[in-house]
Amino acid sequence: MKLGTVRVNGAERVAVAVDPDGRRAALLDPGVTMTGLISDWAGARPEVERSAGGPGTVALAELEWLPPVPRPGKVVCVALNNSANADRIISGPGHPAGFTKPASSLLGHGRPIRLRRSYGRVHPEPELAVVIGAGGASISPDAALGHVFGYTIINDLTSPTMRAEDTFHYRAIHPRADGAEGVEYVDTWVSYPARYKGSDGFGPIGPWITTADEVPDPHALTVSCLHAGRLVTADSTANLTHKVADVIAFFSGSMTLEPGDVIAMGTALKPSAAGGSAIQNVNLVELGGPIEVAITGLGALVNPVEVR
Amino acid sequence: MKLGTVRVNGAERVAVAVDPDGRRAALLDPGVTMTGLISDWAGARPEVERSAGGPGTVALAELEWLPPVPRPGKVVCVALNNSANADRIISGPGHPAGFTKPASSLLGHGRPIRLRRSYGRVHPEPELAVVIGAGGASISPDAALGHVFGYTIINDLTSPTMRAEDTFHYRAIHPRADGAEGVEYVDTWVSYPARYKGSDGFGPIGPWITTADEVPDPHALTVSCLHAGRLVTADSTANLTHKVADVIAFFSGSMTLEPGDVIAMGTALKPSAAGGSAIQNVNLVELGGPIEVAITGLGALVNPVEVR
Repeated sequence: MKLGTVRVNGAERVAVAVDPDGRRAALLDPGVTMTGLISDWAGARPEVERSAGGPGTVALAELEWLPPVPRPGKVVCVALNNSANADRIISGPGHPAGFTKPASSLLGHGRPIRLRRSYGRVHPEPELAVVIGAGGASISPDAALGHVFGYTIINDLTSPTMRAEDTFHYRAIHPRADGAEGVEYVDTWVSYPARYKGSDGFGPIGPWITTADEVPDPHALTVSCLHAGRLVTADSTANLTHKVADVIAFFSGSMTLEPGDVIAMGTALKPSAAGGSAIQNVNLVELGGPIEVAITGLGALVNPVEVR
Repeated sequence: MKLGTVRVNGAERVAVAVDPDGRRAALLDPGVTMTGLISDWAGARPEVERSAGGPGTVALAELEWLPPVPRPGKVVCVALNNSANADRIISGPGHPAGFTKPASSLLGHGRPIRLRRSYGRVHPEPELAVVIGAGGASISPDAALGHVFGYTIINDLTSPTMRAEDTFHYRAIHPRADGAEGVEYVDTWVSYPARYKGSDGFGPIGPWITTADEVPDPHALTVSCLHAGRLVTADSTANLTHKVADVIAFFSGSMTLEPGDVIAMGTALKPSAAGGSAIQNVNLVELGGPIEVAITGLGALVNPVEVR
């Protein structure tokens, strides 16, 4: 099943795709929210299926899309999680590492990404995203896929200009390595992602959450990125270094996962065989949009770009 | 006025301090939330004042505290924002830089900080926090203080061990500097804060939000950090490099601020004249708690520590 959140007459409504090509949707009753459905999916599913089979559908082309979970508790993004990164990493952890994006950075399908020239360069990062169903902490890898409500598409927009600006080279205060009282200074680089990953519009997501039962293998999906209709990258989720189950298990070891939380699995970055290039060359501030991320079976997330 | 959020019989309730020493509180009606109050404070304030003046108060010592805004849309934390940092910074931005903490990392006053030995070192970072009232984007410095609902206390717990573990030294993909098609590789360090700043319990906050009308100058407050009753640091918010108004203006230039959002202003790190030390020496994993942050006029945030 495919579920999304849309705005109709100013109110949030959950939409359910009703035909194979997904051009029409049924709207669930006002007051039903995606987070509510996710929190009690076993109880809610029969009624959702009845609604999806009823009359009175709407054309998707007329809908204003919101992020499928409009305000997730957190969006955890895994960094440098593609086997193609391996030869670029001089040193780094053997486990998943990441950052969080604020809910205010998320944007629905079709909504304009509004950028400022002062941001410098901004490029797309096409990614598979996991939507958490049952929450939990210290989840084992074996149990992890049971905590997945479904999968969606995220475009993890990034400004390498802001990243460079918001990096400090400094002498960090560390306790003395010899164990004595006092501190010593350690030459360190530290980069702060609030702006370069969390600015408004830096998280287009959706349009649909496809429920996990319809995605038998999340590591056999092609993630494509198209700029102005031109294929830039086409990569397989088979190339993710840390897999969905391991990522859920790892992060839940220190951060409690909650229903509706989103985990972005890391950039699919292999240039397309058909004349693609690096996503880092797609500077949306200079080139504008539309920018599209498509994933096998999940749909296509398309956003225009406006630059001020 | 001082407002907090507590749990009574399993339900969230807003508490209002009713006496000068703050040992008793009035509970507002069930269903009233902090975010609701913040979103319509002008309309709500008269009724809140009536409730605070009524009979039927409760003793604070009996309350279970939640974060004053239980689930803020975002928590933006300003990094390295103290004049004492200046001589440690080899290079860095002239503007505020920061990261976000997820709502799941926040913890109420008095609640135990639960740490694992596997986190390595974890130290406190005592900070003034701003709670946003009216939201907005591109707020001017002159208008910024008008967007402050109030001030609270946050302990921005940090694991330097996780920070080191989650730092990559790698060759970043950049567009070619000479403008030609293609990419080049730039030797870069990048650190990812999801775990080292966002793990469960890494954000004790509260107990109260003190409304802005009772804090005439947010840059004349003493921020103290006490470990097991011993004064570690005592610093003034006068030493913040970027001031509250400038921080709000800067971040709102790329991230829309929403009612209830929290901005942590950066660590007050000056060792106390009375035999204090660096906060980096207070490894809570080894030393346990309690850990306290107190700010002039705002109260004291105290949390025990449990290590597994």
